[in-house]
Amino acid sequence: MSTHTTESHAGRFPRLATLLAFLAATPFVWSQHEFDDAADERGPIRISGNENAFGYSPAAMMAMMESLGNINRYARDEAAAFVEAISAKERVPSDYIITTPGSGPVLVMTALAYAAPGKNMITVTPGYLQLARAFEQAGGEVKSIPLTDDHAHDLDAMKEAIDEDTVIVYICNPNNPTGTIVDPDKLRAFIRSVPRDILVFVDEAYLELADGGLEANSMIGMVRQGRNVLVSRTFSKVYGMAGLRAGYGIAPPEVLAKLRPFHLGGPNLLACVGATAALGDEAAFAENVERYRATREMVTEALDDMGVKYADAHGSFVFIHTGVPIERFQARMEERNILVGRPFPPMLDWCRVSIGTEEEMMTFLRVFREIMTEEGRLASR
Amino acid sequence: MSTHTTESHAGRFPRLATLLAFLAATPFVWSQHEFDDAADERGPIRISGNENAFGYSPAAMMAMMESLGNINRYARDEAAAFVEAISAKERVPSDYIITTPGSGPVLVMTALAYAAPGKNMITVTPGYLQLARAFEQAGGEVKSIPLTDDHAHDLDAMKEAIDEDTVIVYICNPNNPTGTIVDPDKLRAFIRSVPRDILVFVDEAYLELADGGLEANSMIGMVRQGRNVLVSRTFSKVYGMAGLRAGYGIAPPEVLAKLRPFHLGGPNLLACVGATAALGDEAAFAENVERYRATREMVTEALDDMGVKYADAHGSFVFIHTGVPIERFQARMEERNILVGRPFPPMLDWCRVSIGTEEEMMTFLRVFREIMTEEGRLASR
Repeated sequence: MSTHTTESHAGRFPRLATLLAFLAATPFVWSQHEFDDAADERGPIRISGNENAFGYSPAAMMAMMESLGNINRYARDEAAAFVEAISAKERVPSDYIITTPGSGPVLVMTALAYAAPGKNMITVTPGYLQLARAFEQAGGEVKSIPLTDDHAHDLDAMKEAIDEDTVIVYICNPNNPTGTIVDPDKLRAFIRSVPRDILVFVDEAYLELADGGLEANSMIGMVRQGRNVLVSRTFSKVYGMAGLRAGYGIAPPEVLAKLRPFHLGGPNLLACVGATAALGDEAAFAENVERYRATREMVTEALDDMGVKYADAHGSFVFIHTGVPIERFQARMEERNILVGRPFPPMLDWCRVSIGTEEEMMTFLRVFREIMTEEGRLASR
Repeated sequence: MSTHTTESHAGRFPRLATLLAFLAATPFVWSQHEFDDAADERGPIRISGNENAFGYSPAAMMAMMESLGNINRYARDEAAAFVEAISAKERVPSDYIITTPGSGPVLVMTALAYAAPGKNMITVTPGYLQLARAFEQAGGEVKSIPLTDDHAHDLDAMKEAIDEDTVIVYICNPNNPTGTIVDPDKLRAFIRSVPRDILVFVDEAYLELADGGLEANSMIGMVRQGRNVLVSRTFSKVYGMAGLRAGYGIAPPEVLAKLRPFHLGGPNLLACVGATAALGDEAAFAENVERYRATREMVTEALDDMGVKYADAHGSFVFIHTGVPIERFQARMEERNILVGRPFPPMLDWCRVSIGTEEEMMTFLRVFREIMTEEGRLASR
């Protein structure tokens, strides 16, 4: 990488050129399921943690492989290049960006920065709890607003819950675990209606997979307009790099200044290099989005066929109304070597199923039909 | 890796076996200086940031390369294996361990957990400031005790500075920037004499490089005895993996419980895998320690020859009394394409020089002699 050539005093491995030539001649296969015929040796089908089963950008892998010889040095150019790539993608100045190992740290840092006894935040239930839990642990109060009948954010009720001690409104969009999204015009109107001293935190971890993607749905434009809004993104989901830990928050500099005392460092050198390369690999991104959408559709069509209800699915998962208590459903699935999502109270006869590979989801659907039939939730065919 | 075979549904790359066979037949060279004959293309000699110029364990590199296909999943087995390896090395139960991206997060988390208006901590000046700065920013007071005449921790003065509002005593051993160490028996006696409600934080980032290494000098035994002591270690220094961000803290579980609310996640999957492999690669570790000590000795012997004073050097750096104001010395070195350490007030006519490769240090010593002569600090030869 050109950014490293000035670092040749570092512990570089001179055979890397040879290695890369070899790799260039070796077409990487982007996901392995078609080769994976040793079914007996497989572990469980893991569709429990919203991980990406398809894989990630081969360009990112190559870039990381090339950087393995540079990790004796701290990330400098690599961290700067990552911020620059985000800045170009999001069209915000670099002082609007904070990079973190995954986006989880942005959620926790925000909670730590804003929580205090007597202060409250607003979120939904069931919703993604990482920010709310840290807020509560730091002494703040969490107001959890029930979802609407179609399992989406109830913006009116959230608005009504705001009082003079509210410091954050948290919106995970699409919502985890339901997968529903908020209409972007309604969300913009909501943000405009919230008192300006309250931070609206929009967690867009899965938004690339929603109909219309970021273009149609992201609230980044509200940040650009100088609103008191923080948008977080991650490379753990559609980009398929959960174990690499790369993510970021975008907000006005005065918001980020409050978070910085709790910042424990950016993504590591390999994560900076890999995420930067992934941002540049539009083909891999497009392939991942397409596979996610197609596989999700395969699942929802099968559920439609069975007459099983599910929430409007815009993320990398489908929230399914099994009608079976989740602990029981989870255990029955695990007996069949399939790990599904944990309980999300109060929707305790629903199950969140992450989108795995096409093959994994076909297996899931077959087992699902059997278990649902045995449970008396489906007529036997 | 056996820990991954149950994960074969993940986005594994099937050609990896071929790749690894190729790599196994390709001896990696552990540091590149002997091959690096394109001197014109080199960047500066970077002996400013206590980075490891020698490189890191080839076994760690291989392990990371093999894991590049698994990063679409969160670190689970990999994180557990890392904790297990630390537990075996340090002979403490796993609930005494907190893993972090480098050891810096342990320092900052401790500051955030213990600091409050009215509380104080004790450290030395010049010393490593990351914990003290975070403590001060969080509203606590920092009492900085001057070093002894031989640039070491003044344990008696630190003891005297303790009052009823003291919550932390921080000892970086070897001290950064001076490189001096504390006699282990004296340090143990000091720890025993400190009121038990005060946390003694022993930062052992460089201790592997001290005479006698960890065996003779580490305070981990005090943790094992249940003392109110936290020992931190990093893979950024002797292990040569600064950009990978792996480190940990060892302390009684009740101490770690205070830190956890500020924890933003462990090292990433590759860092867990790489650091675990590095712990198992005793040959690479021994080679690194040996090269560090030999190169440091080459530098100190040359300084002795020149009659230039330096602090007793036990870390990966030498703190040299140049007699030249540090900004001026730094600038003159940079003109010659050598980056040296920043100012460490109040010792402003001293310079911290990190140990680079043998060749880099020979270049440094040649340039050093020239500049010192021109500055009238050495008689011309």
